[in-house]
Parts: sequence; structure tokens; C-alpha cells
Amino acid sequence: MKISTILFASPMAKDIEHIFNSKKVAGDKQFRFRTEEEVTEDDYKWADAFIAFKRPPNFSFGNIKWVHSFGAGVDKILKDIDWKEDVLLTRTVCSFGQRMSEYCLSYILRDVQNHLRYEKMQAEKNWKLAAPTPLQEKQAVVYGTGVIGREVAETLASFGMTVYGVSLSGTQKEPFRKVYSSKEPLNDAVAEANYVINTMPLTNETRKVLNKDVLTRWTDAVFINVGRGESVDNEALLQALDNGHIRQAVLDVFESEPLPQDDPFWSHPKVIVTPHISAVTTPEEGVDCFLNTLYKLENGEAVGNAVDLNRGF
Amino acid sequence: MKISTILFASPMAKDIEHIFNSKKVAGDKQFRFRTEEEVTEDDYKWADAFIAFKRPPNFSFGNIKWVHSFGAGVDKILKDIDWKEDVLLTRTVCSFGQRMSEYCLSYILRDVQNHLRYEKMQAEKNWKLAAPTPLQEKQAVVYGTGVIGREVAETLASFGMTVYGVSLSGTQKEPFRKVYSSKEPLNDAVAEANYVINTMPLTNETRKVLNKDVLTRWTDAVFINVGRGESVDNEALLQALDNGHIRQAVLDVFESEPLPQDDPFWSHPKVIVTPHISAVTTPEEGVDCFLNTLYKLENGEAVGNAVDLNRGF
Repeated sequence: MKISTILFASPMAKDIEHIFNSKKVAGDKQFRFRTEEEVTEDDYKWADAFIAFKRPPNFSFGNIKWVHSFGAGVDKILKDIDWKEDVLLTRTVCSFGQRMSEYCLSYILRDVQNHLRYEKMQAEKNWKLAAPTPLQEKQAVVYGTGVIGREVAETLASFGMTVYGVSLSGTQKEPFRKVYSSKEPLNDAVAEANYVINTMPLTNETRKVLNKDVLTRWTDAVFINVGRGESVDNEALLQALDNGHIRQAVLDVFESEPLPQDDPFWSHPKVIVTPHISAVTTPEEGVDCFLNTLYKLENGEAVGNAVDLNRGF
Repeated sequence: MKISTILFASPMAKDIEHIFNSKKVAGDKQFRFRTEEEVTEDDYKWADAFIAFKRPPNFSFGNIKWVHSFGAGVDKILKDIDWKEDVLLTRTVCSFGQRMSEYCLSYILRDVQNHLRYEKMQAEKNWKLAAPTPLQEKQAVVYGTGVIGREVAETLASFGMTVYGVSLSGTQKEPFRKVYSSKEPLNDAVAEANYVINTMPLTNETRKVLNKDVLTRWTDAVFINVGRGESVDNEALLQALDNGHIRQAVLDVFESEPLPQDDPFWSHPKVIVTPHISAVTTPEEGVDCFLNTLYKLENGEAVGNAVDLNRGF
């Protein structure tokens, strides 16, 4: 694929332009950096390639051959649109696996290493033996067995944790002990997991996958959501927290973001809310990932981050 | 070495006896399980092997050929004694490396993943982008490059962290980017570390290695002590905290344990106190490590956990 004209639409247009200018991009490329308000019909006609976090309201395919999502999720790009079949869609996955792994691991270690308990003991000047549990004695289940889910699983497995996977297809993949299908009732092995991690993208098939039937199967598990808020039935999650099926929820993603001020998650004693930071694209990383994809496309190499439009990720 | 009679002296004697009975130890072995108050002169004469956390007050070598420390440190066994040269001393190191790695990593991730900051933001229902820093952008220095220090370093390096080592000899070892000697002034590279971790055993040479000269070289580092409290000059540490050289101290070990009620560390806002739990020997692990060492000794295999009496670890 030959790409000559590249259109970027984002609130961060100025920052991105600065980073592009600092890179040595082949001289035959032309760029336009726009905010979502500035981008025009003419821009879409001019561009071979279009990069954005989400589809601007006035988007049209124009002469665009390739759309690249500056985020890992493409739901805000694909939502309510008939995608033009010959337009390639790729997404930023470059550093997300590592970032999400570190996010998940940080909260799992916070739990097994009793951070909260020692904090309380310190406040009381209470010296009492209360040993942490090594990770190798714990089990986790990761929803989503794509690039990101696998990297999270690899990190946990490297500490000796037993890690199961759940995906739509249930196809076996390394490094999961076993992968189950989300279309079947929750397997007993998975129901014994101490940590439940959602990394699934948002598609019609992943919507509310973590519903009441599933959430009530665990006993005393910690739930970590770094995928999408829409994969969870929030009412069912609140009930599972109240009933002890879920001991703690660590939520980085929500159906509505920023999380509304009146949302019960904010002040729930068993919920940790973080502001969708588990896999922030730094502009630098995003540009590198885009340029890497561009290089592969122009040189006829396979790109690992192309979106399968039927699956939606 | 042939071992027929095994003496165990510990407050946990009953628990340990229970575990030994559940293991299939060769039938020609005889055991005595004693508390430190119960153990007698006769026991020491009777035993080929002696196992304890620390040397009981009435200890004598009797006919003992082998002493095994049920902890990783042997300072409480070697303190104020002329060791009998032909008595082998071994120590429990089996699972300590992993346990200490997880302890250290949990507090490093707590820091880079902004746990405290998000906790405050959640309390204020404040949704604001504040991205965590990937570990690969951070540097650590590990004091002590033995079995435990190396395993801690390997864990951190596996996340892409740059890890330097400091040891008495300064001998180069994997996986350290570079190892420096503690006898030389702190190297500039080491002084840039974000995380300073002490894993050193207590010997005359490691006493107050982390003194004012060293501690004032860092700017904004987090100090984690999982070695021995005596390796740190506490006054200098408190000053380094007040002056910002050390941003936070995570202390699991102290000169006096339990930490006295009037110790300033308990209530210092920049100090996290944990009750010496970073490498708890579970009785099960300790027994396994002892039996593993016993097996190797009886079969003439090399033991990796023998203590070099000249070095003291």
C-alpha cells in the first residue's frame, strides 16, 4: 500500500505534530494535523490515511484507504457505521499489553501482599505476623485471549500463577492453562479463580458478558476491568460485591466516561476507581506504533494490529 | 555426610513435628522437636544435625556436624560465637528470592501505578488523566548480589527496568547492568536510581553500609529494606527523608524487632512499616528446604545454601 497523504484528527493535534516533526519520516509524505472541530470534508478527500481516537461527527471515507486507531479499542471508530470494505482498519496495540499487565499486577500484588492490612497495623503500631501469599498459590482467569490478554496472562504465569482464559471461541492458546468459551456456562476451574481480569474489546458479543450468571459463580474473587465498561452488567457487579461473590472490584473502564459524579462506584467501599489509565497511549508511543504500521504496509509486510471487521477487534 | 539424629529447636516445634510426620523421611532418621526452653545439653550431644532460627542461649556444639538455619539470615546463629570449623552451616533460601521479589515489586508498582494518587482522586470523585509510568522507564539498585538479590533483580529486569547491583566485592554478575563495590563512593549511575533495595545479610562489613554519605546521594528515590535493619543508619535515613533525598522508605526489617512503640518510623508520613514479612518461612517451605539440603548432603551433592563463615552468609 502506498501512502502519501496522512490526516490526523485529535484534540492533541499540536502535540502529535511536534512529535512527527521530530521523527525522520520519509520526505514524500504530507501531513495534516487537525482538531476534531477543524477537520473538513476536503481533508477526508485529500487523505490516503486517517488517524484518530474516535470517528469525528462529520467523518466520510473520502479517498481514505487506511484508518488507524490511536487507541487499542476501535468501538468509537466502528460505532454506527457501515464500514467501507476495502478500507483497512488498524489499531494501536504496541505497548498496551505491558502497561495493562503492570496495572493488573500492581493490584493483585496489593492484595496478596496485604498492603491495606499492614497500613492499618502501622496506624495502630501493631507488630503481628501476617504473611503475604506467594503469587504461585493463586489462580487467575483472563477474559480476552488476544494480544493484550495473552501478555497479561504471560506476566502472571511468569510468577507461577495458574491462568485460565475465556474467549468467544474458546480456542486454546499459550500461555493459558486452558481457554474456555464465554458462550458456555462458567467452568468450575474458572469459578475457583482468585482474580478475574477483563481485557475484552467492546463488540456486540462481548456486551455484558460479565453478567449475573457469571459473577455469582465466584466466591471471594477480585475483579479487575481494563477492557471496556460495557462488558459488565453493573447492577449484577454491585450485587456480587454486596453478596461477597466479588470481594473487590478494580475498575479502570466504565460505560460512561468520565464516570458520572452520582455513580455508586465512586464511593463503594469495595471498589477502586481509576480514570481509564491502565493503557494510556503516550503520544510518543502512539506515533511510533503508527509509523511502525505504516512501514510494514508500505513494504508489504504483515501487520499484527489489523482489525477483523467481523469480530470488531 | 551421614545424618541419623536431627534436633529441632524453635517456638514452632509442634507445628514442625506435624509437618515432618506428614513427609516421607527415610526411616533410619530419629528426630527431637524442642522449644528453645526445652532443649538440653544432652540433646546437643545426641544430635548429628541441629535446626533453628537462632542459637538457643545454652547452645553447645556437642556432636553436631551440621547446623541449618530455618531463616535466610544467620546473624542470630553466628552472633558472638567462635564457630567450630568442621561444622557445616546452611541456611534456608529456597523460596525467599521469590517472596522478596514480590514484596519489592508490589511497592514499586504501588508507586509507579499511582495507587495513592488515584485513591485520593476517587475520594474526591476527581476524574483526571494521570498516567502510570511503565517500569521500563525506571532504574533500580539492589544492595546485595547473592541468591536473593539476584532473584529480585531478575524480576525487575524482566519488566525492562535497568538494575544495578552493589556488593562488598563489586564482582560483576548477571542480571545486573553493572555491579559496584560498596567500599567505593556511590557511582553516579547508581545515584540516579529511582528505587534502592537492600537485600544484604548482616555482617560486620554490611553494618550501616547505607549511611549518610550514601543516602544523601539520591534524589527522590524510594528505599526498600528487606535485608537487615542494621545495614541502615536510621538517623541518616530520617534526615534523608526530611531532605527529600529519599521520597519514601518501605521498611520490613529493623534493628530492634518488634519495632518499639516509640520508634519514629511507625508514624512517619513517608515510611511504610511492615512486620518482617517479606520472606516469611512457612513451616512447610522451611521443612522442604531442610529435607532438600539433607538429601543433597547425604548423596554427596553440592549444596547451594552453605554459609561461608568468613563472609557470614
